[in-house]
Amino acid sequence: MTINEGVTKETEWRIKVDGVIWKRGEISCIMWTFIASLYFKLCEFIKKSWEIGVNDPRKFIHCVKVGITLTVVSLFYYLNPLYDGVGGNAMWAVMTVVVVFEYTAGSTIYKGINRICGTTLAGLLAFGVHWVASKAGEKIELIIVGVFLFLIASVATFSRFIPIIKARSDYGVMIFILTFSLVSISGYRIDELFDIAKSRISTIIIGTSLCIIVCLIIRPVWAGLDLYVLVIGNLNKLADSFQGCVAQYFEEQTSDEESNKKMMAYKSVLNSKVTEETMANFARWEPPHGKFNFRHPWKQYLKIGATMRRCASCIEALNGCINSENKTSYDIKKIMSAASMKVGANSASVLRELAITIKTMTKSNKLDILVIEMNNGAQELQKLLKCYDDGKIEIPIMEIIEVVSVVSLLDEIVVRVKDIVKCVEELSDLAKFKPAVLAKCNKSKPADNKISPEDQNDDERIIKTLQIV
Amino acid sequence: MTINEGVTKETEWRIKVDGVIWKRGEISCIMWTFIASLYFKLCEFIKKSWEIGVNDPRKFIHCVKVGITLTVVSLFYYLNPLYDGVGGNAMWAVMTVVVVFEYTAGSTIYKGINRICGTTLAGLLAFGVHWVASKAGEKIELIIVGVFLFLIASVATFSRFIPIIKARSDYGVMIFILTFSLVSISGYRIDELFDIAKSRISTIIIGTSLCIIVCLIIRPVWAGLDLYVLVIGNLNKLADSFQGCVAQYFEEQTSDEESNKKMMAYKSVLNSKVTEETMANFARWEPPHGKFNFRHPWKQYLKIGATMRRCASCIEALNGCINSENKTSYDIKKIMSAASMKVGANSASVLRELAITIKTMTKSNKLDILVIEMNNGAQELQKLLKCYDDGKIEIPIMEIIEVVSVVSLLDEIVVRVKDIVKCVEELSDLAKFKPAVLAKCNKSKPADNKISPEDQNDDERIIKTLQIV
Repeated sequence: MTINEGVTKETEWRIKVDGVIWKRGEISCIMWTFIASLYFKLCEFIKKSWEIGVNDPRKFIHCVKVGITLTVVSLFYYLNPLYDGVGGNAMWAVMTVVVVFEYTAGSTIYKGINRICGTTLAGLLAFGVHWVASKAGEKIELIIVGVFLFLIASVATFSRFIPIIKARSDYGVMIFILTFSLVSISGYRIDELFDIAKSRISTIIIGTSLCIIVCLIIRPVWAGLDLYVLVIGNLNKLADSFQGCVAQYFEEQTSDEESNKKMMAYKSVLNSKVTEETMANFARWEPPHGKFNFRHPWKQYLKIGATMRRCASCIEALNGCINSENKTSYDIKKIMSAASMKVGANSASVLRELAITIKTMTKSNKLDILVIEMNNGAQELQKLLKCYDDGKIEIPIMEIIEVVSVVSLLDEIVVRVKDIVKCVEELSDLAKFKPAVLAKCNKSKPADNKISPEDQNDDERIIKTLQIV
Repeated sequence: MTINEGVTKETEWRIKVDGVIWKRGEISCIMWTFIASLYFKLCEFIKKSWEIGVNDPRKFIHCVKVGITLTVVSLFYYLNPLYDGVGGNAMWAVMTVVVVFEYTAGSTIYKGINRICGTTLAGLLAFGVHWVASKAGEKIELIIVGVFLFLIASVATFSRFIPIIKARSDYGVMIFILTFSLVSISGYRIDELFDIAKSRISTIIIGTSLCIIVCLIIRPVWAGLDLYVLVIGNLNKLADSFQGCVAQYFEEQTSDEESNKKMMAYKSVLNSKVTEETMANFARWEPPHGKFNFRHPWKQYLKIGATMRRCASCIEALNGCINSENKTSYDIKKIMSAASMKVGANSASVLRELAITIKTMTKSNKLDILVIEMNNGAQELQKLLKCYDDGKIEIPIMEIIEVVSVVSLLDEIVVRVKDIVKCVEELSDLAKFKPAVLAKCNKSKPADNKISPEDQNDDERIIKTLQIV
């Protein structure tokens, strides 16, 4: 018996997986390995998550803000006098805080206003339906309410497909359907419908106001400022990428990680369309803040973004050309090098000047000169190619194909940079940028002295964050 | 007195705006104009909205589905036996339907499962906190609950910034915070907390199940199918754009609206990244449907999308080159025309064959030949340029700059088309596409006979819709 028991216990620890028999020691070893790997993965995950917050402390602050608002709103429930005031409906205030409190001030205001408007409109409409139905007699009441519910829910759902409604009040329509359903259905059972609706709307207004107040008072995150910083950052990225590509091709620099990262920065410009649109959409809901007045032309930033993406597409093609298999003779590269590098540097200067123009919100007095220099550089390049025709350069055409196409892409990029210049000039008119400061025509840092060091630190931190995102 | 009164009445109708005095007749005229313009704008708006539905009747069907589900769920409240069963909490079922019912099956399932998991987890955690707090005595209870609420809400809010959590369970985390707040706050007042939580979860499960059932049974809209159709459509768009650009440049076609629209089709390829990602994210939640098995490699479609966008960038640059101001002599254009057009046509054939491969889910037996033809075409172009070196063509270099850069862009596009081919081949391996049908090597319509006419109509309708969107 004893021996038998021992055998049974031992065989309990043998497991057959895929035809392989695992023994007790092996199993515990595997289990430990599994637990250890799980532990390390978890540590890695926590470390990465922590870094997200360290890179943009606004995210940490946002979480604390949500926590504070929720705790404050729970006081409505905890403290008796307040509880008696708004009744069990205090839950709606809690719910509103969780649902409405968003990262940026714009999206919080958007959601809050949508929630209040949607609830109020739907409540009124539901009362109307309820009144009509109750006049019709008890038997038909159910049918009338049901038919209205079906019709209004269907039509409202359809309206969410219409682009302008989707952009401006998608959330409001959802809340409209929600409230209409709840009120019209409850209407059949609860007689004090009006009181319930009233207290529900008042709790929602309490919740929304609390969210908006906390959002605006404690370190607000502005969608508008983020959009502005994103556009400035993207202009600088384009400048870095373009100059980097030209330098790598003509100087055949050994590319380290840092310069490679700069060269590839245009990729994030290509992908920023949706982010820009979302931010511009929320920015319109924000009150005047910092340098931005009421009715700041946020839409113009989208236009700038579109022209930047067209420019980035060209840099993408340039990048492809540079890495193609066509071989170019060293001689012709050397001949074209100086002029091409100049075009690259000039275009980059124009882009950086545009970034400074937007950053300082001051019309630039250097921009015109820089654009002229850029144009001259492009013409010089064309002249150099002409030398080939005049027989001053003698190199077989197969060896200049690549250079010629790189040069004509440079030309195309110059054209597209000019489009960006136009768009930024439109912005400077629309947003009434300050006129250029003629006296301070300092070569090195022309208008940077307009920003306080604190502002700059703030902007740089945001730019850093946006690069990571 | 009478005269005076008359004067007063008449002056009432005079209004001064911007220094201009408007009389009675003018005011009513302006008002009518205003009402009429409002009426016409409204009509226009309704007409446009109606067209959205006519172009994609699935949107109409979706609205009807939402209406039906809401009406059915309201029965829980209307019919007494059911009402007694789930109590006033039936409201939660209505709420769930409004919030969870989304356009595609994938997003409905995603939201439903997230809602159930979030609610359950938060409910359990809130019970734990409530239990700990109640053991600690009445005085500290409030503080403990408050501290936990603050901590858990903050941490959960932070987790929404982590990319993987944002992609897979952003909605679940929000519901988690919501439920945790509601339950832990209610816990202080309501003794039958457990019953409330139980009935809340059961009504949410009822609401979610109803949504998922209606969503899957009545004409389901699959995110996966939409992604698949989008990728196929984009491949065809690239083919049209590329061939169109080359034809316009070398044949100098008079561009009508239709061909212009085709040429610009690549733009929507450039902007489809976010749509593709959203769809792929939802597609993973969908059960096997139509030609798609469980664990269909949806991620691979994103890779194909990325290579397509790289190709579209090059077409964008090509488009810029074509419309640039550089003049190319007619002679050189004529010489390069045939070979270039061939490269354009070959690449387009490859792209269209890839579209057919994905559409029929059958490995192509023509693809290899088409790729070889495309490569040969590109080499032929290079040879033509060499003729210039050999002195067979005598044209100044300034006149061939544009052609040379167009040709080298064609080259680059060929390279990028080959990347797309690779990605599609990976997809065909991952998704285990059927092997090529050797017998049916029909030149005109190689594999189209694999799709039933109904399927094709369906697909075409969806493609049409996606073009509009």
